[in-house]
Amino acid sequence: MNNLLKKETDTRLRKLQQTISDANADACIITSSVNQFWLCGYIFDGYMLLFPEGDPVLFVKRPAGITDERVIQIRKPEQIPDMLRDADLPLPKRVLIESDLLSYSSVMRLQAALEMPEVINVSGEIRRLRSVKSEYELNQIRESARIHTKVYELIPSLYRRGMTDLELQIEIEREMRLHGSVGIFRSFGENMDIFMGSMLAGDNAQAVSPFDYALGGAGTSPLLPLGANGTKMLPGMTLMVDMAGNYRPWMDDMSRTFAIGEAPDIALKTHQLSIDIVRAIEQSSRVGTPCANLYLMAEEMVKEKGMQRYFMGTRQQAKFIGHGVGLEINEPPVLTPRSREILESGMAIALEPKFVLPGIGPVGIENSYIVHENGLEKITLCEETLIVLS
Amino acid sequence: MNNLLKKETDTRLRKLQQTISDANADACIITSSVNQFWLCGYIFDGYMLLFPEGDPVLFVKRPAGITDERVIQIRKPEQIPDMLRDADLPLPKRVLIESDLLSYSSVMRLQAALEMPEVINVSGEIRRLRSVKSEYELNQIRESARIHTKVYELIPSLYRRGMTDLELQIEIEREMRLHGSVGIFRSFGENMDIFMGSMLAGDNAQAVSPFDYALGGAGTSPLLPLGANGTKMLPGMTLMVDMAGNYRPWMDDMSRTFAIGEAPDIALKTHQLSIDIVRAIEQSSRVGTPCANLYLMAEEMVKEKGMQRYFMGTRQQAKFIGHGVGLEINEPPVLTPRSREILESGMAIALEPKFVLPGIGPVGIENSYIVHENGLEKITLCEETLIVLS
Repeated sequence: MNNLLKKETDTRLRKLQQTISDANADACIITSSVNQFWLCGYIFDGYMLLFPEGDPVLFVKRPAGITDERVIQIRKPEQIPDMLRDADLPLPKRVLIESDLLSYSSVMRLQAALEMPEVINVSGEIRRLRSVKSEYELNQIRESARIHTKVYELIPSLYRRGMTDLELQIEIEREMRLHGSVGIFRSFGENMDIFMGSMLAGDNAQAVSPFDYALGGAGTSPLLPLGANGTKMLPGMTLMVDMAGNYRPWMDDMSRTFAIGEAPDIALKTHQLSIDIVRAIEQSSRVGTPCANLYLMAEEMVKEKGMQRYFMGTRQQAKFIGHGVGLEINEPPVLTPRSREILESGMAIALEPKFVLPGIGPVGIENSYIVHENGLEKITLCEETLIVLS
Repeated sequence: MNNLLKKETDTRLRKLQQTISDANADACIITSSVNQFWLCGYIFDGYMLLFPEGDPVLFVKRPAGITDERVIQIRKPEQIPDMLRDADLPLPKRVLIESDLLSYSSVMRLQAALEMPEVINVSGEIRRLRSVKSEYELNQIRESARIHTKVYELIPSLYRRGMTDLELQIEIEREMRLHGSVGIFRSFGENMDIFMGSMLAGDNAQAVSPFDYALGGAGTSPLLPLGANGTKMLPGMTLMVDMAGNYRPWMDDMSRTFAIGEAPDIALKTHQLSIDIVRAIEQSSRVGTPCANLYLMAEEMVKEKGMQRYFMGTRQQAKFIGHGVGLEINEPPVLTPRSREILESGMAIALEPKFVLPGIGPVGIENSYIVHENGLEKITLCEETLIVLS
């Protein structure tokens, strides 16, 4: 592990140790890949046990041979108590665990293996800790956004007349992979299946979906009803591209809208409304701004133009206009009318006030930002106007 | 819903109702996408409640507007008891739930919402029910295998000298998507991250991985240490392609090995040993065959040739040579030395006795089969010899 990475993970471990102390807990056990990576810099099949002080103990089932002196190789969690006794370490009685991520069966087994400690959910608190990024992490998001922009700039050259949304998506996916996208798109929650992002053309943007994304789409499989559905892109339609910005472990998020041929006037106007909302939020956001205010400001501007029926969907309307980004695409804070979160220095957020116009398609933009003391730093520096594909 | 699909889902619901009765439970609650799809033909954000008799009640949070008279729209699970009372249905006291799939937090909330019924894990039993497929399901697996073969046959034309494993993988991924792959590759378990499959060239096949797949690979991201790592494919190396067969909701599984230029003699011989093992298993498998016997037969043949050190990996060796396939890539049965499962009519299985040769790369094949009364039906009808890329 290089020195920078060690310094990063040490700082994160100290934050989590403070959480353990604040909760009057004896230890925290980390098993999810995303939090193992955040706290260790790599992932393994096993359990990270962290006490309020000192180094973590990494109980690793596989792989064998990790070069990290904190590792103790195990076959199963039932071995942990004996190994703790051998190392003169206490068996914790009150343990923070990732209850939102581990299955019920896994928790039951782990709890029995550890001789039935009390378990307390730490998932949300770790997400809160992760929502404030270090400069190292922010640089990864900036870098991801830079590559994301490069890929989006290729879209007009990938388009051919008569293509379906899915055919264009496949060419974009290929460019994403050639530019270093790891493919897998990490999200939080049990209702967030997706494959590399979303492309919505024409009225498919009105199709409702079971998933918790800003917009829906019918998809092509009954097991993944989301996004592109094979719509042939015809003049007069719009196409929204919201493909993953997963070029680094820390991700950005960005959407851009394209017009197939000339865009109808209402599409141009409503797209501009999205840009205007983004500009207004940019100008009134800084450390301390309540996230709910940003939603309400957007809603107010939408009402002024009488566009509520088309805001964030039609048949199903999302009640948020933005969210944090990081190791997962949906991190805190979330920009909803009832959010109690406030913007903090070092947060990375995406703003996505979008509209769906029946008979035309989706319009609007999504940008990613870093929150600073005096305002937002836009990091998705990519043309924002409605770009014509022809 | 068409008649065939209704007949299919009705049959599956009856099987699960038998499970509820056998467990002396009052009901079963299904929340996972894969099991909702299996039992309803579509997915939603919500809860399917099934009693030992009658139709299920589908408590749906989203999407709105599903045209299915069994649906009751809800906002949150806490509304379920009142809605059951309104419908003159009993509140269950003993409930089967998917404990291996739901998070601990979700189970805690659901249990509290339902006024604290006893909960019993049904995940494994549903996987067992799903492992015996209907003719409709088997035809989907056959169809997936047919398309899988078409894509693999394109590989020599996608290869260019000097390519990396990842560059070739990206071109294969594109063809997969153009041939209808839904992208997402469904697996069971908390330790099974993967993106569209695995490509292993040369010594990268020796790299250990935290995941529970047959072979490892270093990957390109610390958050996804698996598969292709950017190895430049050079003469004398072998390349194993184990990309997803997810062209239908029900999947097949297939691996093929390629030689970059002329293959070393030991690669040809060991590849043939894999084919010989597959042939031997094909000939001795039928309904009633113990799965452990198939593993032991393979192990015996490997020992006869003195190739144990290279079987199913080198630094880390997988202790299985096959597994069921279906809606998830790793369904029962599993072909391990200690398996107590036996082959049943209508099971779909993949056989993958593979070897890793230091300094050369992985060799061997993987085929998918359907289990019949008198033997196996091979469905991955694709050239099995070591194919030369040049």
